[in-house]
Amino acid sequence: MLYPQHFDVIVVGGGHAGTEAALAAARMGCKTLLLSHNIETLGQMSCNPSIGGIGKGHLVKEVDALGGAMAAATDEGGIQFRILNSSKGPAVRATRAQADRLLYKAAIRRRLENQPNLWLFQQAVDDLMVEGDRVVGAVTQAGIKFRAKTVVLTAGTFLDGKIHVGLNNYAAGRAGDPPAVRLSARLKELKLPQGRLKTGTPPRLDGRSIDFSKCGEQPGDGMPGGMSPVMPVFSFMGRVEQHPPQMSCWTTHTNERTHEIIRSGFDRSPMFTGKIEGVGPRYCPSVEDKINRFADKDSHQIFLEPEGLTTNEYYPNGISTSLPFDIQYALVRSMAGLENAHILRPGYAIEYDYFDPQQLKSSFETRAIGGLFFAGQINGTTGYEEAAAQGLFAGVNAALQAGAQTSWQQETWVPGRDEAYLGVLVDDLITKGVTEPYRMFTSRAEFRLQLREDNADMRLTETGRRLGLVDDARWEAFSRKREAVSRETERLRSLWVSPKNLTATESERVLGKSIEHEYSLADLLRRPDVNYANLMSLEGGKYASAELNIPVSRETPAVPLPEAVFAAVVIEQVEIVAKYAGYIDRQIEEVGRAAHYENLKLPLELDYLQVSALSFEARQKLSKHRPETLGQASRLSGITPAAISLLLVHLKKSN
Amino acid sequence: MLYPQHFDVIVVGGGHAGTEAALAAARMGCKTLLLSHNIETLGQMSCNPSIGGIGKGHLVKEVDALGGAMAAATDEGGIQFRILNSSKGPAVRATRAQADRLLYKAAIRRRLENQPNLWLFQQAVDDLMVEGDRVVGAVTQAGIKFRAKTVVLTAGTFLDGKIHVGLNNYAAGRAGDPPAVRLSARLKELKLPQGRLKTGTPPRLDGRSIDFSKCGEQPGDGMPGGMSPVMPVFSFMGRVEQHPPQMSCWTTHTNERTHEIIRSGFDRSPMFTGKIEGVGPRYCPSVEDKINRFADKDSHQIFLEPEGLTTNEYYPNGISTSLPFDIQYALVRSMAGLENAHILRPGYAIEYDYFDPQQLKSSFETRAIGGLFFAGQINGTTGYEEAAAQGLFAGVNAALQAGAQTSWQQETWVPGRDEAYLGVLVDDLITKGVTEPYRMFTSRAEFRLQLREDNADMRLTETGRRLGLVDDARWEAFSRKREAVSRETERLRSLWVSPKNLTATESERVLGKSIEHEYSLADLLRRPDVNYANLMSLEGGKYASAELNIPVSRETPAVPLPEAVFAAVVIEQVEIVAKYAGYIDRQIEEVGRAAHYENLKLPLELDYLQVSALSFEARQKLSKHRPETLGQASRLSGITPAAISLLLVHLKKSN
Ligand SMILES: Cc1cc2nc3c(=O)[nH]c(=O)nc-3n(C[C@H](O)[C@H](O)[C@H](O)COP(=O)(O)OP(=O)(O)OC[C@H]3O[C@@H](n4cnc5c(N)ncnc54)[C@H](O)[C@@H]3O)c2cc1C
Ligand SMILES: Cc1cc2nc3c(=O)[nH]c(=O)nc-3n(C[C@H](O)[C@H](O)[C@H](O)COP(=O)(O)OP(=O)(O)OC[C@H]3O[C@@H](n4cnc5c(N)ncnc54)[C@H](O)[C@@H]3O)c2cc1C
Repeated sequence: MLYPQHFDVIVVGGGHAGTEAALAAARMGCKTLLLSHNIETLGQMSCNPSIGGIGKGHLVKEVDALGGAMAAATDEGGIQFRILNSSKGPAVRATRAQADRLLYKAAIRRRLENQPNLWLFQQAVDDLMVEGDRVVGAVTQAGIKFRAKTVVLTAGTFLDGKIHVGLNNYAAGRAGDPPAVRLSARLKELKLPQGRLKTGTPPRLDGRSIDFSKCGEQPGDGMPGGMSPVMPVFSFMGRVEQHPPQMSCWTTHTNERTHEIIRSGFDRSPMFTGKIEGVGPRYCPSVEDKINRFADKDSHQIFLEPEGLTTNEYYPNGISTSLPFDIQYALVRSMAGLENAHILRPGYAIEYDYFDPQQLKSSFETRAIGGLFFAGQINGTTGYEEAAAQGLFAGVNAALQAGAQTSWQQETWVPGRDEAYLGVLVDDLITKGVTEPYRMFTSRAEFRLQLREDNADMRLTETGRRLGLVDDARWEAFSRKREAVSRETERLRSLWVSPKNLTATESERVLGKSIEHEYSLADLLRRPDVNYANLMSLEGGKYASAELNIPVSRETPAVPLPEAVFAAVVIEQVEIVAKYAGYIDRQIEEVGRAAHYENLKLPLELDYLQVSALSFEARQKLSKHRPETLGQASRLSGITPAAISLLLVHLKKSN
Repeated sequence: MLYPQHFDVIVVGGGHAGTEAALAAARMGCKTLLLSHNIETLGQMSCNPSIGGIGKGHLVKEVDALGGAMAAATDEGGIQFRILNSSKGPAVRATRAQADRLLYKAAIRRRLENQPNLWLFQQAVDDLMVEGDRVVGAVTQAGIKFRAKTVVLTAGTFLDGKIHVGLNNYAAGRAGDPPAVRLSARLKELKLPQGRLKTGTPPRLDGRSIDFSKCGEQPGDGMPGGMSPVMPVFSFMGRVEQHPPQMSCWTTHTNERTHEIIRSGFDRSPMFTGKIEGVGPRYCPSVEDKINRFADKDSHQIFLEPEGLTTNEYYPNGISTSLPFDIQYALVRSMAGLENAHILRPGYAIEYDYFDPQQLKSSFETRAIGGLFFAGQINGTTGYEEAAAQGLFAGVNAALQAGAQTSWQQETWVPGRDEAYLGVLVDDLITKGVTEPYRMFTSRAEFRLQLREDNADMRLTETGRRLGLVDDARWEAFSRKREAVSRETERLRSLWVSPKNLTATESERVLGKSIEHEYSLADLLRRPDVNYANLMSLEGGKYASAELNIPVSRETPAVPLPEAVFAAVVIEQVEIVAKYAGYIDRQIEEVGRAAHYENLKLPLELDYLQVSALSFEARQKLSKHRPETLGQASRLSGITPAAISLLLVHLKKSN
């Protein structure tokens, strides 16, 4: 049957990529259909119950600035929030949250169900409708044909998915879910270039059987004992009051016995015996991989992450494994606190089809089949955040191609590498491809100083508004912030202190020394050891802003007033921009210089393995591929802009 | 790998049967393991979002009296409660609730996760471990072997499950879930006698696309506009305050056009074209079956049941179908209010293996393999309640066989047909077997006057306590009620009125006429037109009970005080027992008489199709099988005790 209603955009898959794709296309006014195996698993987290982290949190904030769901759903479902790297520079600071799986899923589903222009339909897609060299729709398992102008495929780990536990294996899309076998076969017929990757997950534990008194406690920010008294929010529109009750994580460690047990299973490991063909993620290695590769380390830290408020399940982060179950059982019980731990679900690895992202256009449309877009794990990435970002991106481009009415004037939208991590992600994928599951790192972004979590809104909300992704409420809140930031920046530029109007004691108190000539407050704020609060305290608060000088209640530091939050956010932005402008300019220059060295020949005799400044991975990759020029080196998968800079330094030194 | 810990009882399957089985065995102190495909689907409702109804509500209250989870989870997840048949006799009164699917599932999962002695493990079971003629454990998909003394198999519709939508079909356990193919094959190898049945489900609708102004509203009891101001609770331990916010159901109707559309799909119906081998449930017929069998009816009522508080999904009760999707689409849209309805999930039929329950012992242990118990849909039944009741039953017997330490002295526990609907269910299954999915009806219970919802606690709590199923809190609450009932009954027996001490006007006001001699209040209460409240009002409340005379607040009739609820419950019981004692005695006699006619020869020339007192089904069955004696007739599947009584009356008349 041909379904009577025709759609603008069909999204296949209801994971992190699919849901953001569908929501984005629908926000842009396109008639959108989300086809998925199971409405109950919309927004399901296949693996760890957490969102964000370094590089990943950046992507989440960008998706959020573009009106996406992930950050907001995390605010509703998050049971622990932390700012990682809070003592480091703002560029590498990142938000990470533990999420209650059920609450997170419910928050995503509610958004999907209530999104205008979006229709949901539960059924596996077995085939694509192709006419000439264009996709024109999708066909479900029961033979229902849905027609649309564009199709976004986000099948995750499901395409010909195969689960491994030791030397046993069986077909599945993920534990408990059926695989997509027919669609995989069909895509192969369509000759889309495809390969196999693998990823893994740890066994889950029953919290009732864990002895937490033997574990370290790790409370979140804003919790008693937390690193910071202030509880973070993820979304620009988020409020702390949305957070459900908060929970601690716990830590334990592997030990020599754990490692022995793991080694004793190597001969029955599907990875080491060649049963698994797919390549796994270097950055989320299985525990057997860690023991194998870092044989000298005699302990690894393991985080016990709660899976939710209403369940006893814990996720032991750090022991992802596809070793046989008897080894899993013994290795878990070899750790402190886990001596009697009951495993609720075994760990496993999954192998699945991915498609070479180098065969995508910069909009994520496949080169081979017009109107067909790919996003998420299917493009060779790993991680919820990478999937969500790609989903939003592909959804936008599919909607633009389907004729979305927006004030965006171009046919596609492709953010630059200097504009967003999303731009880095897309560019890396289509130019470098992948040889192993790709995940985001700040080191992948050469413009990392300007691609911060704190300015994701500033970088992208306006674009999002023009694309039709950003609703009025967000736009107004954003505009208000942006205006306040620029007003305050102007104000600081217009206020001058000079040896004449600033006493030496005040100057020494606040600036560390007396000033020799006239400075604007904006100038002073650029100094590393001067902060906004100090400046405003000058001469009894004479320069304080009427608008932003809002005392935060001391009684409830974790739940400040909306106006105080607003002021803090504005001040933070004013301060960071002032302080980092210089560094950012220098970074831009550096990037330009690196581009300049594009054709620099790399010495034939160079022994990369000895370049100790480079990461082990970079050394391996370079000595394997032996690129001729620095430009070629920079396009190798796994060679980050940071590695290129280091290499350049090394070459300069050795010349 | 052989799992190091050995269990007493393994339950395979986490549906309604499996969860009650596992909870019951664990409550009885057995080390119990619940193995299931997916922890996320524990307690999932495969079809309609409702629990209870006539006959079914009875089973739920019995499961509850035995400490089971279904009623309590419904109290936590129920978004509409009604007492059906509230104007009829107490024997056929029944509770029915709409449940929020997610809340219901969460309530079940919480109980499972927190039940002492119960371990959960997620993985499909592919094989049973059999030694000699006994089962000794189960083997999962990844080859993990779990050993136990007994195994309860509750695989529902999953064994070799095959979904049909029109002439398309594919393997699945239920929409979105994988089937159990290997286990099915293995059971066939073990030569357990097996057949195929089928059941079906309607398409689900997006509430945003329904025009409710064209539908009839059906609020629940205790809701504004509801049939009764009092909101029911399901569990003996339930409280109205546990209920989440309540929602209305809605009604619409099929019409001539709907029926035409349905008929136009007959040639592509998997049922009518023979694609489906399995027999479907006569009592939950698909809509095509209804149109086919009741060709003269030009409209059927359809209920639009909300699927939850946080979803827009609606379940259109009455249009279960496996017609092709184009027919589903058109038939839905032919109905008032559904002109633009969007289908979220297509309707489908599912075929699956069941096992002949006549091959079970009265404990539900299979005759062929010692220690192996079957419960739920696998035994040829349909319905959550039937599954839950069987699950609890099999769980208890598996636990007894596994050596549970209880004060129950026997090797098995088999409630009689006069004791519980559960007894009727078990006895029907093992003696009559099934030829189509079996569901419970009050007509199946010859002792139906004594098997009421209101006395499920009185009938079973004590047994449950001896079996170790009933915890202290329930036992105390129950004992308090039972004592209050007997105290009040005694009190009424000891209070006498006579023409001397009762004025004629009072007597006429309350009893309708003056009394001629002495009566105890207990005697008077037996009169059909006298109720407890009337009696207590005699002579200004002179006979009122100090203990039970608690005024219910008029302001909040739906949320009465605990003590008032207690009093009402006690009074209800005192009253019903007094009033129905006579009828019950007569029923027991009648049943005895029917047994007496066991050998009564049935006339060869009897044209059953003309016996209009019998249901159409009974007429068909009898004329097909032409039993020789009344006893044979009574053992035919589908011939209820009620039908036997009617047949006896007919024979007497025609003689
Ligand atoms: C075992 C396992 C371990 C993992 N470990 C890690 C890790 O350590 N670190 C990490 O960052 N990430 C990990 N991940 C990856 C992470 O889960 C994914 O990156 C992320 O979920 C990808 O999102 P997605 O939307 O691309 O796909 P998914 O979340 O997989 O969603 C795919 C969706 O598509 C649907 N679908 C698929 N095929 C069809 C079809 N034919 N018709 C209709 N619907 C279809 C599915 O039902 C599902 O809704 C792991 C995943 C798995 C399964
Ligand atoms: C499409 C459909 C329509 C229905 N329509 C109706 C209706 O109209 N009226 C009505 O009263 N009832 C209906 N039902 C039936 C109702 O859902 C069942 O009666 C009830 O759910 C049976 O409960 P159960 O516990 O026996 O099995 P289920 O609820 O089916 O649960 C089976 C459980 O066993 C697990 N399982 C199965 N095989 C394995 C294995 N090998 N290893 C591990 N775990 C396994 C599954 O994952 C699941 O948890 C319908 C069911 C379906 C699927």
